[in-house]
Amino acid sequence: VTTWDMTFRALPGIPLIQPGDDLPAIITDTAKADEFALADGDVIVVAQKIVSKAEGRVVQLAGVVPTARARELAKRTGRDPRLCQLYLDESQAITNVNGRHVVTIHRLGFVGTGAGVDMSNIADRADGYAVLLPADPDASARAIRNGIRDRTGATVAVIVSDSFGSPFREGAFGAAIGIAGIRHLEEPDGEADLFGNPSRPLMNRVDEIASAASILMGQTAAARPVVVGRGIPYTADENASIAKLLTPQPLPDRDYDLIPGI
Amino acid sequence: VTTWDMTFRALPGIPLIQPGDDLPAIITDTAKADEFALADGDVIVVAQKIVSKAEGRVVQLAGVVPTARARELAKRTGRDPRLCQLYLDESQAITNVNGRHVVTIHRLGFVGTGAGVDMSNIADRADGYAVLLPADPDASARAIRNGIRDRTGATVAVIVSDSFGSPFREGAFGAAIGIAGIRHLEEPDGEADLFGNPSRPLMNRVDEIASAASILMGQTAAARPVVVGRGIPYTADENASIAKLLTPQPLPDRDYDLIPGI
Repeated sequence: VTTWDMTFRALPGIPLIQPGDDLPAIITDTAKADEFALADGDVIVVAQKIVSKAEGRVVQLAGVVPTARARELAKRTGRDPRLCQLYLDESQAITNVNGRHVVTIHRLGFVGTGAGVDMSNIADRADGYAVLLPADPDASARAIRNGIRDRTGATVAVIVSDSFGSPFREGAFGAAIGIAGIRHLEEPDGEADLFGNPSRPLMNRVDEIASAASILMGQTAAARPVVVGRGIPYTADENASIAKLLTPQPLPDRDYDLIPGI
Repeated sequence: VTTWDMTFRALPGIPLIQPGDDLPAIITDTAKADEFALADGDVIVVAQKIVSKAEGRVVQLAGVVPTARARELAKRTGRDPRLCQLYLDESQAITNVNGRHVVTIHRLGFVGTGAGVDMSNIADRADGYAVLLPADPDASARAIRNGIRDRTGATVAVIVSDSFGSPFREGAFGAAIGIAGIRHLEEPDGEADLFGNPSRPLMNRVDEIASAASILMGQTAAARPVVVGRGIPYTADENASIAKLLTPQPLPDRDYDLIPGI
């Protein structure tokens, strides 16, 4: 697929999302109110935060009882022991602790900080609510995709996005945690490059799209949580799964030593 | 800066670039021929390959004499010993060897494979030419920026982009190796999130933009090596440098052991 132009639009007027909200209906209605018709081939990037909220993946910290290990992690990082318990619950392993940052392998395989547990953009944080990643972000993406098709007839791709860091570069960037209708890697344009030499590596198209959308979402993704990309070259895939994109990570032999040298 | 729409356009008709070519003139003339006027605030993403070629960063392998270490690396990877010599010349350190992949810290600090040395999209590869990264990619970006301003009056930002992999995910994605006129990290929209909680982390805006442009460049970047982004929220910076984006990497205590266990 070759295109020369592509556009990204943040849908204005997405309301604050509450547990139980119907995201496909909200996205469709918001686009309609914006006089923007979703079309075949569009890629809808949806911030993880609103997907999790709609699915009720919100935990009140008051109900979390920290284990001894969570309390050690809290002492080490200066974070709430109950939040640290959620990090432990949501991750396969802790691979590093650096100041306040806890590097985790999420139960779904994502390498990042804090197991995707988020305390920002939660109303009345003083009461202590945390947002977890969706239970099955690919299923979340599929449900949004199917819901949009049911309501508009348009066959779109959907990417549920979150922010990740890199071990090599400062700052965070948008990346995919759930996908539907789009192949995770993009094949080369052809068998060989312009001069018949072997092609360059496959491109991680879904993270590139999530990064592009993140530019418009800005820091407060709750304000602009849905971005529609149009004219994006990608390969449709009815069996898309983010798991196929993840490089298997070695798990530590034992629990991360929370008190090295002691 | 808040925007709701952004567009990316690959300039059609960029000719094959030769050493000594004037990239700002070519970009400006190509945009004009496309009836596309470059404007203040545009972000011009230029594929590293054409920047390197214009700057004559092309090496004929026939003139490279491999050292013993390069020959060991060649034996280990199945690659040309002279190409391996370029990997060694262009990098501070080799941090890993995995099959044919040589993970390097480039002399400018970029972590990637093969020290940015590229054999693809080179005419008549049989004769053996390799392309190195620009000597100073920030200076390359500044020169393009200044040249475009001289010719059009437009104050744009410029990103020189290359493809990198991730240790956590398959495939490659576009990332910045030189920048001009754009801050490397984007500040939060405000001091706090929607509910007054501390903001999310700074965003690596220049890599996000390079990833977006990479979507249009496709695999054969020589065919669509210049992408213009418009409507992109970013912070102008006259003292931009990609070095500020790089997380310092620990160098190995000694040369990577090319023959482990022997």
